[in-house]
Amino acid sequence: MNFILGVKIMADFKTLMINRRSIRKFIENKKIPQEILDKIISAAFYAPSAANVHGFEIIIVTEPTLKNKIRDVCEKGEYSWVFAQPEEVKESILSLPDYSFQKEFLSEAPLLLVISTNPNNPSIPYAIESCWLSIAYILLAIEESGLGSLTYTPSICLTKKRVELNKILDLPKSQHIQTILPIGYYNERPKPKDFDYSGKVHINKFEEPIEDE
Amino acid sequence: MNFILGVKIMADFKTLMINRRSIRKFIENKKIPQEILDKIISAAFYAPSAANVHGFEIIIVTEPTLKNKIRDVCEKGEYSWVFAQPEEVKESILSLPDYSFQKEFLSEAPLLLVISTNPNNPSIPYAIESCWLSIAYILLAIEESGLGSLTYTPSICLTKKRVELNKILDLPKSQHIQTILPIGYYNERPKPKDFDYSGKVHINKFEEPIEDE
Repeated sequence: MNFILGVKIMADFKTLMINRRSIRKFIENKKIPQEILDKIISAAFYAPSAANVHGFEIIIVTEPTLKNKIRDVCEKGEYSWVFAQPEEVKESILSLPDYSFQKEFLSEAPLLLVISTNPNNPSIPYAIESCWLSIAYILLAIEESGLGSLTYTPSICLTKKRVELNKILDLPKSQHIQTILPIGYYNERPKPKDFDYSGKVHINKFEEPIEDE
Repeated sequence: MNFILGVKIMADFKTLMINRRSIRKFIENKKIPQEILDKIISAAFYAPSAANVHGFEIIIVTEPTLKNKIRDVCEKGEYSWVFAQPEEVKESILSLPDYSFQKEFLSEAPLLLVISTNPNNPSIPYAIESCWLSIAYILLAIEESGLGSLTYTPSICLTKKRVELNKILDLPKSQHIQTILPIGYYNERPKPKDFDYSGKVHINKFEEPIEDE
């Protein structure tokens, strides 16, 4: 946040985009004021949504026992999932920077946002797509509030065991959890990184010949 | 965009979110400067992406013959798709405000961004989810540039006929088109709208009992 002649100037969009990085270490017990949380959640509803439905559900989890249960299920689920993958996939996951089976952020962040939708409800067209547009808005609102988060999707959500998480939260099975965002204050943030998009942007036609599926 | 003592101040995030609305009517033939297009596209790469892969492809379509072909396939595909839906779904689509089988925006916008990903490539984890985070960033970058867009996903993409669109663009079948964003200048923008998120936000647990799937 900047000040010009004492006038508070919110960070512009580019600054928000560049500065936002995944945060895994939160200052424990530093709570998030309600008005900031309201601002973060309302961002989700400004995102475009197919048929203007905003067909997702958000659960704000602050209870330590619930956070610990969620962490436990996510850690066990991820361990089973990773070791059930083909060797190549397993290796690539285990070699990711910052990868760990320990999901401390789920118990250490003062607050988790569990965001889910029902991809099988015909009244919610493009449920997953629309939900992720809203998640992007939430991530930027978190950054604008001076807080940090991580776009975490438990791998148990890729399996039939996903309902174990639903049970903890009394969430109907029809709801598919898309992400669990830990949110909190932090001391250190990774540096902005460079990116290279060569090869991913094409003019008028894709350069490669059509391949068989 | 605002000015304070002659210093250009970019719109803050909340203003961008509130002002961004779906635009269907573009000023024809008003081209988008290259540097603005570069800024819009680069936004996609600032979004978080599973395993930092950014596993999507972007095709910038400006050729009028290609835009017309895309429009033709999308319109025919949507007509077939809508009339193949159960009565209830069909009625709800046809009663949407602004709904039309005519997709003028596909031929009238000076530029289309066709964004696709491969959801079956194990090297692109959470391909669709990550792609839609990037689409949200693109939409906000379009708004920040003073341009308009519409988050349009052709319904033909929900069917096996989706490859008809791929063929027009020489796009491999393995790529699933997620959205076609028409981008351009506009004269009129719908007013910001209110929203109500009561019933969609829950504290610690979801209020409803677990239902059977």
